[in-house]
Amino acid sequence: MDELPKKIVVVGNGPVSIEIAQFFNLVETEVIFLTNNEELIPGADTFLNDYILDKLKQDGIKLFINTEYKSSGNDTIIINGEKIEFDLLINANSRGAVLPPIDINIKLTENGFIEVDEELKTNIDSIYAIGDVNGKSYLAHVGSAQGLFAINNIQGIKGAMNYRIYPLNIYSVPEMAQIGMTEQEVENEGISYKVSEFPFMANGKALIEGNTEGMVRIISDKTFGEVLGVQIIGANATDMISEAAAFVEMEATIYDVSRTIHAHPTISEVFLEAGFEAVDKSIMK
Amino acid sequence: MDELPKKIVVVGNGPVSIEIAQFFNLVETEVIFLTNNEELIPGADTFLNDYILDKLKQDGIKLFINTEYKSSGNDTIIINGEKIEFDLLINANSRGAVLPPIDINIKLTENGFIEVDEELKTNIDSIYAIGDVNGKSYLAHVGSAQGLFAINNIQGIKGAMNYRIYPLNIYSVPEMAQIGMTEQEVENEGISYKVSEFPFMANGKALIEGNTEGMVRIISDKTFGEVLGVQIIGANATDMISEAAAFVEMEATIYDVSRTIHAHPTISEVFLEAGFEAVDKSIMK
Repeated sequence: MDELPKKIVVVGNGPVSIEIAQFFNLVETEVIFLTNNEELIPGADTFLNDYILDKLKQDGIKLFINTEYKSSGNDTIIINGEKIEFDLLINANSRGAVLPPIDINIKLTENGFIEVDEELKTNIDSIYAIGDVNGKSYLAHVGSAQGLFAINNIQGIKGAMNYRIYPLNIYSVPEMAQIGMTEQEVENEGISYKVSEFPFMANGKALIEGNTEGMVRIISDKTFGEVLGVQIIGANATDMISEAAAFVEMEATIYDVSRTIHAHPTISEVFLEAGFEAVDKSIMK
Repeated sequence: MDELPKKIVVVGNGPVSIEIAQFFNLVETEVIFLTNNEELIPGADTFLNDYILDKLKQDGIKLFINTEYKSSGNDTIIINGEKIEFDLLINANSRGAVLPPIDINIKLTENGFIEVDEELKTNIDSIYAIGDVNGKSYLAHVGSAQGLFAINNIQGIKGAMNYRIYPLNIYSVPEMAQIGMTEQEVENEGISYKVSEFPFMANGKALIEGNTEGMVRIISDKTFGEVLGVQIIGANATDMISEAAAFVEMEATIYDVSRTIHAHPTISEVFLEAGFEAVDKSIMK
């Protein structure tokens, strides 16, 4: 294309569809966002999904959630019986495995992914499948982790891949990130839990930088205080989630979070304050 | 002052003196930096001290390290027998405790700080002294931690304050931060250790953002792999140190660091790569 399109339709769900929709909205293209899913980002906490849904609405993006559509030629789509014209349609849906033309008879799942066992081995003894081809995760870093896990297994270092402790990053405006269990998962498992929040608005460094939108949310087990999940909304949330990843990986408690001295002035103090909030109450709120 | 000074002398050591010197250099004031200490930042790893010394030289700041000086009137200073004129002298040296006029007979140390015991109690049974008045640390977040520690002690929750696990942040250009033991401390204790480094230059997100200067350095125990200390140089190092703080606080090993899935693309992947480097070798280096 030589020029930016005037009007686009983004079809899909997950981080990439939101990132693309917000980008085109930013460069003043009219954006229609369309998904046949109930959630914008499958696997993300409802808190994040609700937040970004509101945000896209505020951005002026036309949203059709949980909606079926029919294609009608190259530049028209039919949504709820209505014809909608566009200059460009971007399909950001997830897709099945794409295999090169090979003679090896790799077994696929019903959904079109490569079938693997717990060690990520395919039906062919010497072939492993890692990354989005096996349908377990569409995230690059989970693919990398699967690669290391598979190699370890081949070398005899056995173990189980834990699909609960991986970060999910959304490069939206504002950025969003999560790690560990969502509040809905914790609820479904019947765990007695506590949610402690701290807003960026009450953080000195965030005020200095003018990035006051957002918050950190820690979901912790009520009995022992274990940090089960963390969600962050705000500038640099995608990099900040790494501290939460360290705590969750180490099976840290909310008491550990509260004991960890955080430098002042830093944005990272929001973790400390959310920790205080869980143990007793935050100082700066 | 109505105008920026043409020429200043910054006397002192520690983060603030470096931050002020670089600020005035940035706004094109001629800067002379003067300290009678051997190190620019007492307590910082030699690696950081050497790095920032080179940086200040490159910035064009005139440096007098480990140098005595004599004041000679309001706008002149004598260094090594030479008279140097200035418009402004900024004293960023640390100073003793400043007490309000009080009738209570608080005992001071030889260096002019308030004397406290291990619980941070002064010679008066009902008075505790926290923060830089007690001379244990000039850092605001260590002062906060002392406050919480003292209150816990008063409430009967006893424990020892660990002065080894606190972040040291320098808001220089580029930013620098450290946590835990320095390489020199590890050496002095005769611990068998390993240093693993990873440069920002080899990190995808750092390349995208154009912030390729800097690196992360992990100092780990060779026997069990415990992460003993971490140093970071680079954009946002002061906030990034919080992930290292989480690992050090949790007594994590280099294997824990390598196992923690870090989102892609993020700057935080430098921790993962430095972890790989310690265990075997980094992937992206």
